[in-house]
Amino acid sequence: MAKIKVGVAGYGTIGQRLADGVALQKDMELVGVADLAPTLSVRVLYEKGMPYDLYLVSGADRSKFDKLGIPVKGSFEELIDRVDIMLDSSPGGIGAKNKELYEKKGVKAIFQGGEKNSVADVFFHGYANYENGLGKDYLKLTSCNTTGLIRSVDCLDRECGGLDKVAITIIRRVADPGDYHRGLTNALQMDKAPSHQALDLMTIMPHIDATGILVHTPVTHGHIITVVATGKRKITKAMALGAFLKHPRIMVVKLEDGFLGNASFFKYARDLGKPRGDMYEIGLWEDSIVETGNDIMFAINIPQESVTIPETIDGIRAAMKMQMTREEGTNTTNEYLGIKNR
Amino acid sequence: MAKIKVGVAGYGTIGQRLADGVALQKDMELVGVADLAPTLSVRVLYEKGMPYDLYLVSGADRSKFDKLGIPVKGSFEELIDRVDIMLDSSPGGIGAKNKELYEKKGVKAIFQGGEKNSVADVFFHGYANYENGLGKDYLKLTSCNTTGLIRSVDCLDRECGGLDKVAITIIRRVADPGDYHRGLTNALQMDKAPSHQALDLMTIMPHIDATGILVHTPVTHGHIITVVATGKRKITKAMALGAFLKHPRIMVVKLEDGFLGNASFFKYARDLGKPRGDMYEIGLWEDSIVETGNDIMFAINIPQESVTIPETIDGIRAAMKMQMTREEGTNTTNEYLGIKNR
Amino acid sequence: MAKIKVGVAGYGTIGQRLADGVALQKDMELVGVADLAPTLSVRVLYEKGMPYDLYLVSGADRSKFDKLGIPVKGSFEELIDRVDIMLDSSPGGIGAKNKELYEKKGVKAIFQGGEKNSVADVFFHGYANYENGLGKDYLKLTSCNTTGLIRSVDCLDRECGGLDKVAITIIRRVADPGDYHRGLTNALQMDKAPSHQALDLMTIMPHIDATGILVHTPVTHGHIITVVATGKRKITKAMALGAFLKHPRIMVVKLEDGFLGNASFFKYARDLGKPRGDMYEIGLWEDSIVETGNDIMFAINIPQESVTIPETIDGIRAAMKMQMTREEGTNTTNEYLGIKNR
Amino acid sequence: MAKIKVGVAGYGTIGQRLADGVALQKDMELVGVADLAPTLSVRVLYEKGMPYDLYLVSGADRSKFDKLGIPVKGSFEELIDRVDIMLDSSPGGIGAKNKELYEKKGVKAIFQGGEKNSVADVFFHGYANYENGLGKDYLKLTSCNTTGLIRSVDCLDRECGGLDKVAITIIRRVADPGDYHRGLTNALQMDKAPSHQALDLMTIMPHIDATGILVHTPVTHGHIITVVATGKRKITKAMALGAFLKHPRIMVVKLEDGFLGNASFFKYARDLGKPRGDMYEIGLWEDSIVETGNDIMFAINIPQESVTIPETIDGIRAAMKMQMTREEGTNTTNEYLGIKNR
Repeated sequence: MAKIKVGVAGYGTIGQRLADGVALQKDMELVGVADLAPTLSVRVLYEKGMPYDLYLVSGADRSKFDKLGIPVKGSFEELIDRVDIMLDSSPGGIGAKNKELYEKKGVKAIFQGGEKNSVADVFFHGYANYENGLGKDYLKLTSCNTTGLIRSVDCLDRECGGLDKVAITIIRRVADPGDYHRGLTNALQMDKAPSHQALDLMTIMPHIDATGILVHTPVTHGHIITVVATGKRKITKAMALGAFLKHPRIMVVKLEDGFLGNASFFKYARDLGKPRGDMYEIGLWEDSIVETGNDIMFAINIPQESVTIPETIDGIRAAMKMQMTREEGTNTTNEYLGIKNR
Repeated sequence: MAKIKVGVAGYGTIGQRLADGVALQKDMELVGVADLAPTLSVRVLYEKGMPYDLYLVSGADRSKFDKLGIPVKGSFEELIDRVDIMLDSSPGGIGAKNKELYEKKGVKAIFQGGEKNSVADVFFHGYANYENGLGKDYLKLTSCNTTGLIRSVDCLDRECGGLDKVAITIIRRVADPGDYHRGLTNALQMDKAPSHQALDLMTIMPHIDATGILVHTPVTHGHIITVVATGKRKITKAMALGAFLKHPRIMVVKLEDGFLGNASFFKYARDLGKPRGDMYEIGLWEDSIVETGNDIMFAINIPQESVTIPETIDGIRAAMKMQMTREEGTNTTNEYLGIKNR
Repeated sequence: MAKIKVGVAGYGTIGQRLADGVALQKDMELVGVADLAPTLSVRVLYEKGMPYDLYLVSGADRSKFDKLGIPVKGSFEELIDRVDIMLDSSPGGIGAKNKELYEKKGVKAIFQGGEKNSVADVFFHGYANYENGLGKDYLKLTSCNTTGLIRSVDCLDRECGGLDKVAITIIRRVADPGDYHRGLTNALQMDKAPSHQALDLMTIMPHIDATGILVHTPVTHGHIITVVATGKRKITKAMALGAFLKHPRIMVVKLEDGFLGNASFFKYARDLGKPRGDMYEIGLWEDSIVETGNDIMFAINIPQESVTIPETIDGIRAAMKMQMTREEGTNTTNEYLGIKNR
Repeated sequence: MAKIKVGVAGYGTIGQRLADGVALQKDMELVGVADLAPTLSVRVLYEKGMPYDLYLVSGADRSKFDKLGIPVKGSFEELIDRVDIMLDSSPGGIGAKNKELYEKKGVKAIFQGGEKNSVADVFFHGYANYENGLGKDYLKLTSCNTTGLIRSVDCLDRECGGLDKVAITIIRRVADPGDYHRGLTNALQMDKAPSHQALDLMTIMPHIDATGILVHTPVTHGHIITVVATGKRKITKAMALGAFLKHPRIMVVKLEDGFLGNASFFKYARDLGKPRGDMYEIGLWEDSIVETGNDIMFAINIPQESVTIPETIDGIRAAMKMQMTREEGTNTTNEYLGIKNR
């Protein structure tokens, strides 16, 4: 079977990781990446010997690339002509404009969380609604917090007899490492409730009632979310833990093993030799799982830079009908990304 | 009626504020404060002209005070001899030792949250269990987070038909402004769940089932706690808001008015001319109150340096039987502290 | 002698403090303050009972103030008509526009550091070039870092036989407490060298050669500047310390006394009962003064919110010819602000 | 020629990187690493399949390792018996104790900056005093800041006609990523001047007069040091830049290329695929180089976790007389570490 040809629009924090993730899939071919300017990310691509071909979007000044000796393969339209599906990780709002090109050229696309839901036929999550994405032309992926959150909520929902409602508190990292533009100094900043992540969860899982509060914190290494979940019937800590331990994209950890907070996952992944110190799995503290009445409460860690990569690749599999079921689709993604299926 | 004579042990962050709070009570007399060393706080007391007499605890080196010209009124035992009740804000563990002296001298005492519960006859909160403190010899006050949390939970419990359970997420400031010893840098740190604040809440309010998760964050201006509360019957946002607005020690604010996060309360109090920029009230964001099923969720701000002062003074009133009911006791404290009774 | 009538344009972080500072001057009258919107600062003014009259600048929506019950005294032009001199602490760039009004009305004005130098007749510092401001119509004050830096450099220059050159490293706080808009998280950010503060120093003190590097840091309580100064002849630590100790607006401190860093000054001022925890003095660590060859090196702390207030009031004295010498002008300001003349 | 056999004591932040660096040297063999407990770093070693043999130091509880299935090769003494030289990155103070074993067994050792200078025969820096280390038994490496600082100072000293003196300002990161024990929150903390780094520089380069001030800042990604250097004759920006550009372990960068601060190097190295996102080179901002009188000033970035690895390996080469000159020694280290010789 011919490999599925994939392009990436926007070679920033997410785009770099989407490209790397697709390049690991043995049944896909990364045709190239598109960007506007010779950013530090693009320069690094050049320093690494151009493992991916570079295309320029409309408005790019080619002379700047020529001056630096960075080879350019072609235009954004040429990239689109050569692929089956585009992964669009352009800055928020640009994806909607790019969609006109995708429609004109008849290629499918998956948009990231920064775009409006209306840009897509389906709001997608690999584990929660894989089947809804089958054969669709335009998918929008859940944002980083929602992606990680839904992994854990969907897991409990499927394994522990169904959930009625969840209330979440998102303790959000305010910027990525190396980001000087979005900062916060010595303050916890409130967002208007309910948080969009709770609303998004209800869009993906309409049978669950959800609400939540988001607080920004001045750190860079991963969001932490606490979840209070109410089951249709009593869910014990043992039941929840058992479910979480079986999920390939959830890594259950303990404080006593040195996982003291969000920065521990980053240290762990760096020492393990993971590229960029990235994790695809969310973390879940066994020590955080507590019961109150019929509710179960727990805390998860969201590696914001990399957590959406697996579900985006799941989206390719669904949109291109590469695998027809959630199990086959996610398992194949996991296998090629080096995530242990259990 | 003679004024109640009060002493303060430990002139640090809490002790300074206890002394200032007591000094405002027209029916109390601050006899003096005791400390061990000429710390910056003690030097400042001297620079202000010794508004409070200073006594030295055992082990203090008086020559250090003499060298700086700081007048010393007497020994710790002499202070105890001159008071009806001691407020003990010594470092954790010292209070239990001091208690031996208090017992020997036959004076009452109120301990702060750092001591073990066993040090006291009753674990006390001015609004939640005032009557339990009436005439008691040894009270222990709830810690800063628990004090603020219980204000809001007790408020809902009394005004909205009773609560069954609460699940809290504590987003904890890791150090006070000017504290170089307890720090955290670019990390969110987890504590083992359930948090002690949830357990303490159940000690004070045994009819409520509580659990919670605590996360430390690298900021200094106030904890934020999210609360998911389950009523005996449905509590709407309007009901909850109505209850909170009536509580003298809860300040309801909106994001649109400029209260964007924990640091806004500090800026507000500084600009308002409050000593040290301190607030006695907890903040509660109207924009944070959301419903899910029968649950109500909201977020509060805890000014950690000053929040326990009113409830500690309530404790004096209860222990000394100055007022025999919760309403009279707390209202009198509020009046002298400049907190509006409503 | 009639009091000099003063108005303040822009009631933000600086404007609030300018108004408070002027109100303390017994030979001045604060006529009122002008702003555009009912910000949190303006609401606090209202909660305090309108100690200062409020005027609205062009473009303000009066109905918003009426709705909140905040009394408005008149328009910006009416304020200008009633004063001898305006202190303009409007957002950067607005001052230059306001100047047209000031010129039309024939009132003098002092602009803050955010405006271009060309807005004013003289770039002013109370201690370094008071005489240059005498009788001038338009003064621009040095920015917070430059104001504090020049205090120390001018002090050495006058007391220790003259300076040839200085090289500074500015470790800049990135935002004020309660500022959510300008943040930086887990990063030290470089500015292009030489820093504007070094260039500004040379404008004020043209006989000194200066350069410097500025690094932004994620803190809110005061800049720290290290200064390497080369004297015309050898300056010893004893000479420098002697000079600094005599300067009214320099507070010499030691690490062992508890002044461990920038946050210690804030804690000290809060405990001392200073409004807002503000300091007018810069801090200077005795423990930081070191010699190398003929150079002397030391570190100062700049309380960015309040440091420019005294020099701005000096500017009123110079522009209005209230005192004709640097000594008389600065001493009078100091006296009314509660800064000890030595 | 037989490979030099190397062991590493202490498998923490530095020890892990020393092991990885030695493993890249084609003329060395990493015999194994020694530690006390199954820390997260040791667990990660196990998860990676034990690329390095593990030995246990005295006091280790072997049953803890057995329980986790982590294979143990032998005791610390057995490791020492099998090597020619030990790299000791134990916690501060332990190295001095370990030295007794090294002496007993007759193996050489290199200690890290946490030990006292007296532990070693020579205080060593690969570029500044390679020849002093030739054949010596016990070397102590300069600490991370001093190592990076001396690279730049030695470079100017050799290439630009000699230096007379330097004055440094160290803007120090307070903790490493993932370190929860050493924190600082919203404060800049002063150290007593002169900083030990200035004193250490004079020990290594006794012909230079040095002083400096150190300020701790709440960040994790690299120290920044500003250096004011006085040449024996005038050093221009062009001369300094020319010298820096030729140094293999100095990476000259520009703000406009996206190197905005200390976090940019980390992002750059992560994207480049460097293990752990580590850099061996210090960064030096071309935009920071400024002149004042005869002085030259500039700013460097110190990647604290990895900067000492190359000079430590240089130390092996010197102690074992593998290369007899500074050029050969450092060039060989550079070649195997992937640092471009220029």
